[in-house]
Formats: sequence, C-alpha cells, structure tokens
Amino acid sequence: MQSTMMGAPLMIDHLLDRAGKVFPQVEVVSQRPDRSRHRYTYGEFHQRARALAEMLVNAGLKPGDRVATLMWNNYAHLEAYYGIPAAGGVTHTLNLRLHADEIAWIVNHAEDRFLIVDDVLLPLYEQFREQVNLERVLVVPFSGEDVPPGMESYEEFIGGASGDFSYVEKEETDAAAMCYTSGTTGRPKGVIYSHRSICIQALAAALPDAINLSFRDTALPVVPMFHANGWTLPYTAAMVGARQVLPGPHLDTESLLRLCQEERVTLTAGVPAIWLGVLQALDAEPERWKLPGLRVLSGGSAIPESAIRGFDRHGLKVSQGWGMTETQSLATTLDVRPETSAQGRDAEFACRARMGIISPMLEARIIDDNGNEAPWDGESVGELQVRGPWVTASYHKVPVAEDKFADNGEWLRTGDVATIDPLGYLRLVDRTKDLIKSGGEWISSVELENAIMSHPQVSEATVIAVPHEKWGERPLAVVVTRSGEPLEKATLDAFLEKRFARWMLPDDYIFTDEIPKTSTGKFSKKTVREQFGVQG
Amino acid sequence: MQSTMMGAPLMIDHLLDRAGKVFPQVEVVSQRPDRSRHRYTYGEFHQRARALAEMLVNAGLKPGDRVATLMWNNYAHLEAYYGIPAAGGVTHTLNLRLHADEIAWIVNHAEDRFLIVDDVLLPLYEQFREQVNLERVLVVPFSGEDVPPGMESYEEFIGGASGDFSYVEKEETDAAAMCYTSGTTGRPKGVIYSHRSICIQALAAALPDAINLSFRDTALPVVPMFHANGWTLPYTAAMVGARQVLPGPHLDTESLLRLCQEERVTLTAGVPAIWLGVLQALDAEPERWKLPGLRVLSGGSAIPESAIRGFDRHGLKVSQGWGMTETQSLATTLDVRPETSAQGRDAEFACRARMGIISPMLEARIIDDNGNEAPWDGESVGELQVRGPWVTASYHKVPVAEDKFADNGEWLRTGDVATIDPLGYLRLVDRTKDLIKSGGEWISSVELENAIMSHPQVSEATVIAVPHEKWGERPLAVVVTRSGEPLEKATLDAFLEKRFARWMLPDDYIFTDEIPKTSTGKFSKKTVREQFGVQG
Repeated sequence: MQSTMMGAPLMIDHLLDRAGKVFPQVEVVSQRPDRSRHRYTYGEFHQRARALAEMLVNAGLKPGDRVATLMWNNYAHLEAYYGIPAAGGVTHTLNLRLHADEIAWIVNHAEDRFLIVDDVLLPLYEQFREQVNLERVLVVPFSGEDVPPGMESYEEFIGGASGDFSYVEKEETDAAAMCYTSGTTGRPKGVIYSHRSICIQALAAALPDAINLSFRDTALPVVPMFHANGWTLPYTAAMVGARQVLPGPHLDTESLLRLCQEERVTLTAGVPAIWLGVLQALDAEPERWKLPGLRVLSGGSAIPESAIRGFDRHGLKVSQGWGMTETQSLATTLDVRPETSAQGRDAEFACRARMGIISPMLEARIIDDNGNEAPWDGESVGELQVRGPWVTASYHKVPVAEDKFADNGEWLRTGDVATIDPLGYLRLVDRTKDLIKSGGEWISSVELENAIMSHPQVSEATVIAVPHEKWGERPLAVVVTRSGEPLEKATLDAFLEKRFARWMLPDDYIFTDEIPKTSTGKFSKKTVREQFGVQG
Repeated sequence: MQSTMMGAPLMIDHLLDRAGKVFPQVEVVSQRPDRSRHRYTYGEFHQRARALAEMLVNAGLKPGDRVATLMWNNYAHLEAYYGIPAAGGVTHTLNLRLHADEIAWIVNHAEDRFLIVDDVLLPLYEQFREQVNLERVLVVPFSGEDVPPGMESYEEFIGGASGDFSYVEKEETDAAAMCYTSGTTGRPKGVIYSHRSICIQALAAALPDAINLSFRDTALPVVPMFHANGWTLPYTAAMVGARQVLPGPHLDTESLLRLCQEERVTLTAGVPAIWLGVLQALDAEPERWKLPGLRVLSGGSAIPESAIRGFDRHGLKVSQGWGMTETQSLATTLDVRPETSAQGRDAEFACRARMGIISPMLEARIIDDNGNEAPWDGESVGELQVRGPWVTASYHKVPVAEDKFADNGEWLRTGDVATIDPLGYLRLVDRTKDLIKSGGEWISSVELENAIMSHPQVSEATVIAVPHEKWGERPLAVVVTRSGEPLEKATLDAFLEKRFARWMLPDDYIFTDEIPKTSTGKFSKKTVREQFGVQG
C-alpha cells in the first residue's frame, strides 16, 4: 500500500532556492589572497549559482558530466557546489595539495569535461594542463587581478546568463558531487555523492547532538571544500541559513584566529593539526584573542584528550566526530550523553576524546578477527563497518572488492580498528594497517601517539611499526617538542609507563622539527615510514 | 549518472533498532489511569515492539493492512507506532474524542482489520463494536486490571513471540501510519504517511531551529498520539534517544505540571488551550512549581503573544510552529532569527507569536485572490500553499479535488489565510472559512481573538461572523473571563480600539463559562456557530 504523501525528491536545488528565498539577507564572507574580504549575501549567491548552471547548460554540459574545481574555500567554490548540480552536472573537487601528476591522473580517470580554477592556482594547473583534455577552463579572479590573456573568465562566463533558467531534471539518486580518496595505498579512488545522500546527511549533521548548526551560527570551514565534500558544511550551512566565513588560502593559525574573532565565528571545523597549532597560540597569549561562543569541530583523525582539555581551559569547546570520504564526511554525533555527564568532568573529557555515536539513519558494527559481530562493551576490538544512505557502496569504475566491502557490498569496511562502548561511543584503536604486532600481541599506534602528545612538552607525535627479528614488529615514536629540544628517553618512558605495559613502549624516540602531513592535514605515516626506510 | 552511494532506504525499522541498540538504557515513563507510573527502557520497548510485529505477521497481517489504535499516550501505543509498520502494516490512530458513530465510519472507511485498545477505553469501543467488522481486538491492560473475559489480552498476544523475527520487506514510500482529519466540513479524510515521510520529518523536526531535540532531553507529548501522528514526537524522540514521558489519560493542568516537575521534563508539546490553563495555574501559584529548563511547544492553532509573554515571566520558553494532519504535523521551524533578536525583546515576542519559517525540505507560497504568488513582505495576504516530502498529495479513497490541491496536485491548499514576512515568518490571518467580510472588507477573526485574549481579565475568546443585513457579516465575540464575571462592552471596545479600526470591533461580546473545543483541543467555531444559530 502506497502512502498519500508527495513524491517530492531530496534535491540540492531545494537547498539553493531555500538560501535565496528564506535567507537572502544572510552574508557569505570570503578571505581573498591579499586578506581583504569579499562579502555578499545568499541572495546574490543564489542568483550567481543559477547563472553558472544556466551557462553550463548553454556550454553543452550534459546530465552526469563532471566539472572539476581547483579552488580554495571561497564564494565561487560555493557557487560551483550548487550551480554544477543545478545544471545536472557533478562537482568534482580536486585536492590542490596533491602532486600535479596525481591530479592529472584523477582528472583523466573521472573524465572531467570542464574546470573552474582560482587564478592563484593557475601555476598548479599549468603543471598538469598538458596531461589532461579539458574542454573549457574558467578562471575565477579570486586575487582581484585581471584574468591572464588567453584564459576564460568565470565572471564573464556567468555574466552571460539571462536569469531565465529551470533546473535540469534529475532523480534524487543522481550524481551531484565527486571526491577521490587521498589514497594511502594504490591509486586514489572516486566516491560519487547523490542529491539524496547530501540532503539526508545535511539534516543529520545539523542535529543538536551533532554539529548543532542553526541560523544563529556563523560557520568557518577550515576543512577544504575539496576534502570529503567540505564535510558537507557548504550544504548544511545554507540549509539552516547559517552565515558562512570562507578562509581562502590562509589557513595559518594567526589568520584563522583573526577571522574567527573579527567575523564573530561560532563554529569552525578542521583537522587536529590545525587545532594543535591554535592551542599553542592560545597558550602563548591567553589574553590576546576574544572568541565568545566559538565551538571547534575536529575530525579526520583523532585529537588527543589533552588538547580537548587545553581548549577547555580557554573556554572553547572541542567536539570530535568520525567520518571518511567514503561516508561523505561526518557519520557520527558529537555530544556527550547525560549518563556520562553524570559521572563528572573526567568522564566527559574521556567521552569527548572518542568519536561520537553512529549518526541517525546510519548503522555501525565491529567485526572481530573471526568474522563475528563484537558486542558494544568498549573492550571488544575489530574492524569498524558502516552502512546507510550516505555511505558509498562502490568506487567509480573500480570493481567492488572484498577488502573494501562486506556481505555483498551491504557494509563498508572502513579499515579502522575500533571498539564501541555500551552508550554507543566509537573509539578508534588504529587503522588496520597501522596496528603494531609485537610477539603476537597488538599494540595501538594511535593510543601511544595520544599518550605521548599529552606530555606537556610534546606538540606532535606519531608511532610507526619497524620490523624486528625477534618480535616481528616494534613501535618507533617520532616526536616534535614545543621547545625544539629533545627529551630524555627515560622521561617519556616513565610518563608512558603509567598507562602502558613496559613491552608496549616504543623502542626508541626520534626527535624532529615537524611530522609530515598528508594532503588533508593528517600525520602521514607513509612519508614517515619512507623517511626511516620502513616498508609501509 | 548514478552515484556510488548505498540504496539504503529510510525506514521506521531503523529508528526502532537505533533505540534498542544505541539507547537501550533510556527510560520511557507512562502515567497509568490510577496515576502510578509504568517505567521501562528503550531496550524493553525494542524487544516488545518487535514481538508485536512478529505476532501480527503470525496472525495473518499482510503488507499494507491497517491496524487501528484506540489508545492514550502510553508505552503500548509507542509499541504500536513501531511494531505495526515493522510487520508491514499501517498504524491507524483513532481519535477517541470523536463520536462513536464517527469512529465507526472511519474504521470502516479505512478497512481496519485489527484493533489495539486501552482497557479503560473499552466502554467507547462497546459503543461502536456492532458497527464495525474487526477480526482481532487486542486489549492493553493499561489500568493494571485483568482483561475482561471474552477479550484478547495484548500482553498474552505479544507474549507468544519467539524473538526470531525479520522485518517485513517494504519500500520507504510504503504506507506506515494513517490519520483522519478532524473534518470541520464534510466527512473526515484519511492521510497516509510513509516510512520515508516520517524519517525525513523526524530529522527536520529535531533541528536546533525547530524542536531542538537531543539525547539530553526528556519529552512529554501532551498532544495525543492520535493527533497528526503525535506531531511525530514518538519517532523523533526515539531517533535522537530522548527520554519519553507519556501522560496517559490525565491531561489536566495539575497532573501535567506534577509530571513535568517530578520527571524533570525539558520539552512538552500541545495545543494552546492546554497552555492557557497552565499559565493560569502558574500565575495563581508562582512559587509552587519548579520547572527548570522546560521548553513548551505550542501548535494546532495560534497562541496569543500575551500568553508567550506570560510564560516568559515564569522563565519558561514557549515556541510556536505550524502544521496540520496533511503535513504530518510540524512543517515550520520555531526559533527567532538573529536579525529579529537584534531589534529587541518586543520584536522577539512578536516573532514568536508567528508560526515560524517553512521547514528545510518543504516549500511555502502565498496565493492571492487573483491566483498570483504574493511577495514575502509581511503584508500581502493570500492562501498558504505548501509542498514537500511530508505533505500529502491526496486523501485515502477520495478523488483529488481542486479546492484541496493546486497545480495538478503539486501544492497542498492549506485553507489558511496568511502572510510571510521578508525573514520567512508565517503569520496566519485566519482560516479561509473564518474570515469575516464586512462591507466588502475582510476582518480577521484570529487577530481579534488574540487581541481580546491579551486583556488581563480574559482567559479565552473566539470570534465568529454573524450575518448582517447591511454589512453582509459582522464579528461577534464569545469571551471567558478569569473571574467568571462579564466585562463592560465599553471596556473591551476601548481596549481593542488601540489596535483596530472602529468598524472592525465586534458588534457584541457574549460571556460564557467555557468555549467548546474540537476533539483536538482547538476552539470549535463550528459548535459556537451552532450554539448561536449561525450557519457555518
């Protein structure tokens, strides 16, 4: 028996019209390369995104065609997020931190037809333009300078629109956006998001227990819009009518703190590496920054409990969630349940160092080494598997492989080793491939890293496995100190012995200036392994 | 081009499993007829709702079959909300405040096969049992007494389950629940909700700008679960893991206040008539009740600004939304935008007396007398029309009529006359059929009512049109005073003249003890008109 309800689809076009109709007065602020600020409203955004769509259709874009973006977080990127799907196309965000050869490979694999590129990123484009076959390249004059001769201006392109445009017809399950994984092993793999998956996630992400986003907020996504759909914030913020502040290319601590203070930001989101730097700056000058009501969303990898406590001392609340490119970003709630709060502040901090509870509409399970579903007891360890409306079931043009999907593709194998506690909180023990097997026992590199980083004189730490004749593998720690001076091995051993058995401690600590990061700002264990000549 | 995302459907079964898996420790409290309290957890609820589903399938329930409920808000009704759709059936909530003949008509029209009924409501069932043809009648021993001889016990029925049950396969667009409009004109009409419409609305309703519901909340729905899907709260609360307090048959002011205080309720929801009574009780004994953090959601008809201000004096926040059976209940957000808050407290109160902003994923428009879309200027008046995933496109077994749907059924005609202001706030001017046309000019009965109710000595007021030889129609006010003593006509005229032109004032005020209410607690203008011999 069918219901009597309307068959209204879940569409990004609706979010765009909502921004234009309900929130036309609300501001979008973009920091330009020269640090001046571009300001306009959702009203203008709505008109320009629709103009982009109209002109893409006029230029011959067909439903399902990919339009790549090579852009910082700015107003034009926001227009691309909406204008391309409005035209029936797929917004394919390119990671500008990848090597040019890798970008070229991705453009060719995705079969991108058009590219929108910030003028300040043209030098990067020049490095791969000969390797790709793009029909049109639209240059955004983000710097404020004229578009170089011989290039086509994004402004002139959308300036040709008549305003007489109807959204291209499509289904809610049609492709809307596309993102390649950063690919720590093998080639990057493409995940394709739908109008439906984006709308449902936007609703779930804004919930009070998750990002808690409303029209009273000003959101500053530090996370790049080319990283896992910008954590869906460009869609979620417009849906609820939150003001947006887009930081452009300046993601250094000083620039971010200034933007947050001057634009009265209430929600900012990014990877732990960013927040560890911000915390150091706050600790160094506790009186300098006034950030009333600012909430910090951390994701991408685990932020140590010590850092959460550190922000708390400055009156700032850090929340942590879990997700991956394959889950279109955020897949958990963030907040602490009242049962935990009732146990006091230490219990709250421990909970906030976990990864939240699987989001409404998604499901999670832990599969142990024997292939059995593990209980939610906070102890039983296994691979985290998830499923639901914003979880991928495959990769673009790649056969569905058993190491990535379980039960005939019904569940995504995340590659994260985790536990779930009785209240549903996810704790990541490690990446499957980063666990250290010593004498037949598992050691979690993540737990060692977090413990080392909680030492007051340590700012960054990562732990890798090195081959060992007797034990198979042993942990090696790579550490950055605040002072730049190395610490005694005995000091760190003594610090760790409070929490770990002796045999779990790193065999050695190597002190360095900086831990190499991946293109998305996580510690790159792959690069660290290469530095120390260890097979990944 | 298809996305790579999973085709995971939006299902009530997921909400049920989520409650059982993520929130098994969270409590559901039900007030029994003797005012004792039944307590159990979502864990037990999950197991019992699945047992109900298993036994319904065993009893021969087929996909799409209707199971009626004649029940107060209690744990068994909650189980029916989930167990019936889990079995592939449709939960058809019967309005126990209707006349028995009308209930019988509705049961027959819906072709209900089974009935679940509270034992305390058996006398009502007896009044219509001969008029209907129900195959099984399951009696919930809600009073704690044995089920009467010859009747089948709900507890024994679900007690037969093995626990070995798989959800009946279905599509997300399949029917899950059914509710008949209270039908102020003609026969009641059935609206059928789907798994999809319920899940999407549950997400939107919990948003920070709407009900703002989280796992830190305790929700007490005063609104009956037979009224517009219980405003979807039984689904929304389980989805986010909020504790639930179900008041059973005791909806008097004293009982509600006691429950709210003793169970530390943070969110309660119901019609204005309930809150006007509560406000009188709070005013009478301001020190008696301790209700920290309680939010009040008002809907169903307009609550006067004076009442919102009154609750505010007691530190309690009233939020108001708009919806109808045809929109599965709540269709707007509730909160005040920062642009309005910036204008001060009077502007905030005026905004809160409006009906919120159309919800994400829904659309609203105002169609004027000439059939044109009116601007969102807060002035232009017309019929409110809405559409989206939780708006009905038809009525069960009724041909789609032009007076109910516009543009080939794409928009629902709500019958509400309204304006929308530039920030998106909906203001209801009147029901189409309640507007008063005097000398060719429209007078809003709702605005007059709200103004009269803002007089400190008035507790209830309604305004109807009476025929007039010269002017066509003129307003007549029916008023209840706090003291029970009538007021002078000149007093009320003088009070109203501050806001209305003289010709808009009621020709007369009639003082009475109580204004008759509809089965859903709204002022029944139909009954008032009958009392005064006026054609409706």
